[in-house]
Order: sequence, then structure tokens, then C-alpha cells
Amino acid sequence: MTVLDIPVDSLFGLDNLPYGVFSTEGTAPRVGVRVADHVVDLTILLDDEVFAQPSLNAFMARGPEVWAATRSRISELVRGEVPENAVVDLANATMHLPVEIADYVDFYASEHHATNLGRLFRPDSAPLMPNWKHLPVGYHGRSSTVIVSGTDIVRPRGQRKAPDEATPTFGPSQRLDIEAEMGFLVGVPSTIGDSITPDEFAEHVFGVVVVNDWSARDIQAWEYVPLGPFLGKSFATSISPWVVPLAALAAARIDTPAQDPQPLLYLRGTEKWGLDIDLTVEWNGQVVSRPPYAQMYWSPAQMLAHTTVNGAAASTGDLFASGTVSGAGRDERGAFIELTWGGKEPVQVAGRSSTFLEDGDEVAITASAVGPNGARIGFGAVRGRIVPAHPSDR
Amino acid sequence: MTVLDIPVDSLFGLDNLPYGVFSTEGTAPRVGVRVADHVVDLTILLDDEVFAQPSLNAFMARGPEVWAATRSRISELVRGEVPENAVVDLANATMHLPVEIADYVDFYASEHHATNLGRLFRPDSAPLMPNWKHLPVGYHGRSSTVIVSGTDIVRPRGQRKAPDEATPTFGPSQRLDIEAEMGFLVGVPSTIGDSITPDEFAEHVFGVVVVNDWSARDIQAWEYVPLGPFLGKSFATSISPWVVPLAALAAARIDTPAQDPQPLLYLRGTEKWGLDIDLTVEWNGQVVSRPPYAQMYWSPAQMLAHTTVNGAAASTGDLFASGTVSGAGRDERGAFIELTWGGKEPVQVAGRSSTFLEDGDEVAITASAVGPNGARIGFGAVRGRIVPAHPSDR
Repeated sequence: MTVLDIPVDSLFGLDNLPYGVFSTEGTAPRVGVRVADHVVDLTILLDDEVFAQPSLNAFMARGPEVWAATRSRISELVRGEVPENAVVDLANATMHLPVEIADYVDFYASEHHATNLGRLFRPDSAPLMPNWKHLPVGYHGRSSTVIVSGTDIVRPRGQRKAPDEATPTFGPSQRLDIEAEMGFLVGVPSTIGDSITPDEFAEHVFGVVVVNDWSARDIQAWEYVPLGPFLGKSFATSISPWVVPLAALAAARIDTPAQDPQPLLYLRGTEKWGLDIDLTVEWNGQVVSRPPYAQMYWSPAQMLAHTTVNGAAASTGDLFASGTVSGAGRDERGAFIELTWGGKEPVQVAGRSSTFLEDGDEVAITASAVGPNGARIGFGAVRGRIVPAHPSDR
Repeated sequence: MTVLDIPVDSLFGLDNLPYGVFSTEGTAPRVGVRVADHVVDLTILLDDEVFAQPSLNAFMARGPEVWAATRSRISELVRGEVPENAVVDLANATMHLPVEIADYVDFYASEHHATNLGRLFRPDSAPLMPNWKHLPVGYHGRSSTVIVSGTDIVRPRGQRKAPDEATPTFGPSQRLDIEAEMGFLVGVPSTIGDSITPDEFAEHVFGVVVVNDWSARDIQAWEYVPLGPFLGKSFATSISPWVVPLAALAAARIDTPAQDPQPLLYLRGTEKWGLDIDLTVEWNGQVVSRPPYAQMYWSPAQMLAHTTVNGAAASTGDLFASGTVSGAGRDERGAFIELTWGGKEPVQVAGRSSTFLEDGDEVAITASAVGPNGARIGFGAVRGRIVPAHPSDR
């Protein structure tokens, strides 16, 4: 037996306890919980086959009572002595995609981001569409290209046409970008025909990850009218490996900014589901932005209520992401197209004048939330490195 | 042993042999092949556990050589005597969703449909967007609400705002519509970063189904700018239970209509993948439209090439649908919003003046393709009946 070393200022202390799927050399992926810089193997700590699986889905489907009891039991056990073979150094663990993704929906819930993108994509009209303050605008993304942090990002190829060009051309994207977002994972499904109210959020949602929704702006700008983004987004969406349980974010729950006009009844709840989470965007090791999640206009509870209000079922493994988190300040913008104003205002990154991503560039997005007693709750980083587009005979 | 009765004019004769997932009372779902009005149980006919599963996915993943050998063996066996316990009357079989859907993409490949919808949704601008003839416009739909023919359709509720209303309202959709489409199922996956050329279509795509992409036009019209359709489409997408193998459609392969301008190289192939398929839309038992698939501008091989050209992986179980099939004639339109011109020109259905779907209405879409020697290849019908929206406390 051994006692875990937990520095008092760890972002992954006893108030956090996020879940992930890990393996070590020669072993199968299974569920672990992160405590400081250790991974505790739940197949050893707890005698439950639900953790001997390569995804969290089966555990997530069990629901809030089991989640609470399990969290309480883990918290109790890791304070004492734990079996030595249950503890793996984080450095020796390979992290896997923690969830088998069912449907993936991406929202557009930051007023600052939607306003900035409106100005950049549609300079001749009002930046915010008439529907934007009435409903959380969202669309379905590609589930099969949701990947775990650390997976290389192959530069996408595609068709684009600048407004001043006569015909479209084809090639590797020249405006490859990031979107710093938070993502929410559904555990308990709903039935087709029914809907989930904002106050039922915690009965369905298991936990939260950091998301980088990589975006090819040149492809997106040409393709997205009238049916929305497709290939400009579908090549890769990275998520952090550690799923922070909703229960760990109790102290981070705040009101959203005032919503005016008041939304329709189905989007109103009595519980606070704004979240006081700070994101940090590092480009080649240099911090270029600190997007504040607290400024997001729509709450994740409103996003889930909206997604299901038409009777669409929610499934175990559904991922819905907030859309780019951008604050009011320039250094709070969660996408490079905003940060560099469409590429016209480069930022200095490690001595280089930068607009969009170059091959070899690496982006890491981290986040931390307000925790109990002044502590902070960390999220795993979501990292990705750009590798050149695959050669093409086309 | 028994000999199957196969009427010479059956749409499900020996040149078709579509696959589906069926069960009989008290038995588990498994794979069968349809021959005339019989279901032949492949777990008995062929000794292969791949058919003892509740979806076609594992079989579809095996690839074109196995598909061809299996089809050839089934064709040989069902011409002779087959075990009596391998044969189930179609009337005694319950059909299930034949495929576990991975990603679902819906295209917009009919020039007539896109032009009609453009006129109806955006009366003040050019009906066809500048990108439409350069790429097959598409978007991701919701996989978890793809359901099998015969499942009731719960009327969706949602937010809508007519242009002449000051604020949005909430309630059951008042403009519930259909979209008659064909859908294509991927068997062999591709790798992230790579793409599938148009001439590699048959190495990846297993078969074809009829699709009804139910649409709430009032919800869609208010929500879809700028990120595309979401709740107006995500409540239900029905598919026919029988997957017609690509091999059964050899005689139906034709050129698409001339494409001008010539598309970029990655969308060009040497093989013909237009398809001579005739659809029929029945509304409460009355034929109201006969959409001709032969007039579709973009081929399914171009749709798959486009979906993957950015390096997005294709997965076993991916469904991509053509978008509404509409021909030039009024009685060839595959959606009621077109057929009734936005509800302004009702059609007579069983003595009733009809625009959009009422509770209790039933729609059946059938299709058949040119087969060998003047015969025709049938698709199973995709049926759905509208049931009232669920009660809401909101």
C-alpha cells in the first residue's frame, strides 16, 4: 500500500477527481481518476467491471446517484492508503479518447465571438443575426473526428474562393485556426419525443472537457452558405483527456450575463449554470489569449434544453461544445481569426509575426475553474500540432 | 427443405437481394436477405456469426470482395432448396434499423430543389448560392434520431418567428414536411487525413436506402442563419429497412446531368455514378409526387469524395443522403414546401386540401431502379405516421 503525494496547490486535488481512459505499455485502455500527477487505476481501486472498458460511456450511463456515490468512495479511498499497483505516474500513462462520442453539437454561445465573426464574415450586414439572442444557435459536427489531445492535426485540403477571385481553387488550407471552447458530455440519455429542461441539466450531464474545434477559415467562408459549416470544421475536433465531473464545478456556478430579451420559457431555469472558468491559449508555448468562460451568454443548461426541445433524443456519449469562448478584450479572444482580425493584425509568437497556423505549430488550451475555499479546479490541456497536408494525386 | 416462390415480376427478385435486420416473435434481431415476400435468415443459410448481430455494420466493414462473394453464394443458394426454418414470411418479420449509424451527412444535390428552396427561403436574392455548382453543399445531421421505417414521428415543438411577427413564439411545428431522398451507407472506413476519390466509391459504399428527412419548416426558417439547419431537422430521419447492395444497381448507373462549370479535379471521376431511380411519394395512400433521382446534379461518388477531401475519416455505418430529390415538374417535387409552394398552393389529398402534415397523416416513399433485362430493382418503403407533440409543462 502507498499514500498519494498531493501538493496542496495541485489543480487536480481531492476536490477535482476527473476521470479519463488510460493505458500503460502492454496493457488495455481502462478508466482511471487523476489525483495530482498520478493516475489511480479504478479497475484496482474499485471492484467494478464498468471501469475495465476503453470508454467512460457505461459509467456515464449509470446516472447521478451512482456518480455521486462513486466520487464519494474514491475521495475517501485516495485519502488513505491505496494499493501500489493501482497508482501510475501520469508521465507513464497514455491517455485515450475518454468517451465514445455519439452526436456532436457545436454552439455559438459567446456574444463577443458571434459579433466578431459576423463582422469578419459578413461585413455588410448586422454582425449578430436576429435569432441570436432568442436561441442558442448551434449545428451538428462530425463525431468520428473528435480526437484526444495530443493527436496530430493533418492540415486539411479543400476548396476556397476569396471574394475577389473569379473561381474556386483547391489546396491545403491557408487559414487554419483554432477555437477554444468548453465541451459537455451527456451521461443519461433522454427518449425521442421528450425534452430536457434547464433544471434537469445535472440529471443528464456527466462532466466537462476543454475543446479545440480546429477550423479552416478559407474552406468555411466559401462553403457555409446556406447550410452551415461542413468541411471547414469536420477534419478534427480535439478534447482534453480528463473529464471533470459536474460535481467538481459546484463553486464555479454563476449567473450568465443578463439575457435581454428574456428567453422563451423552455430556456429558463431556476438554477445557475453559468461557469466561472478561465481558459488560456498557448501558441508555440506563448500565451496569446485568456478567454473568460464566465462571459458566455448562453449556459450549457440552455444549450441542452434547446437541443432536445424538439424531441430529439440525447444519448450517452453526446458531446456539445460551447462555441469559441471570447471575452470583450482583444487578448480574451479564443480564435486566431478574431485575435488577428482576419489576418490583418498579426500577433508576435516567439519572434514570428503570426496570423494563422503554420505546419509544425503547436497549440495548447488549458482551463481552470473556481473551486472550493479559494482553490482551483484544473482541466487537462488540449494540445495539437499541425502536420503537413497529405500528398494528393489531385 | 423448401423452394422459394419468386414471382417473375417481383421487385425483390434474384437480381436485388437486399439485406436487412429482422426478428420474429421472441427471437433476437439478426441479418436476413429479402427474396420476393420472404426473409431468408442468413444465420441459418450461411454459417457466419457476422449475421447473428443486430446490425449490418460488421458485415459492411468486410469490404467489396466479401460482399461480392456473399452475394454470389446467396444467389446460388436461394435458387435451389433452402432449409424451411431459414424462411420467414415478410408479414411475420419485424424490421429493425439495419445499421448502427456513425456520422450522418445530408446533401442538397438537386438543382431543382435548391432553386425552389432558395426562392421560398430567400425571395430577395439569387435562388442558387455562388458555391452551389462548385461543390456538393452538405451538412451534418443527427445520427441518434435516424430511425427505421414504420416508427411514428412525434410532431416536434420549437421556436419560430414569421417575418411579419415581432418576437418568436413556441409550440408544435405548424409546417411539418417531408424530404424524399436516397441514402448511401459506408462499409469500408477511411483513415483520418486521407480522402476517397470518386472512382473509389464502390470500394467503400455498401448499399442504398430510401430516406425521409422529416423537416419542420417554421423552426428551420428561423434558426438556420448562419450555421445551418439544426432543430428543424434533428427530431427524426427515417430510412427504409432494406439495404440494396450497390451491385444490384449496376444497370441503373447513368451519367449525371451535364455539370457546368466543370468541377475541380477532386470531384471528377471516370465512372458513372448517376442513378436511374424513380421515387414515389404517397400521402395518406395517394400518390402526390414522382421524384426522378436521374436528374440529381451531384453524384453520390462526388458527395463522398467531397466529404473526405479535407481528411475527415469515413466510418463503417456512415449514412449520407442526397438531399430532397426534385425534378423539373411540379409533380416531381420531393418536399411539400415545394409541392404546395410554401403552403400557398394546397394539393388535394383524399378529398382534403393539404399543405403541411397534420397529426395522423401517413407518408410512404418508395423507389425502384432500372434493373437488368428490363426488370426493376425495388427498395423497401420508408413510412411514417405523425403523432401529436408530447405534452409540455413549458
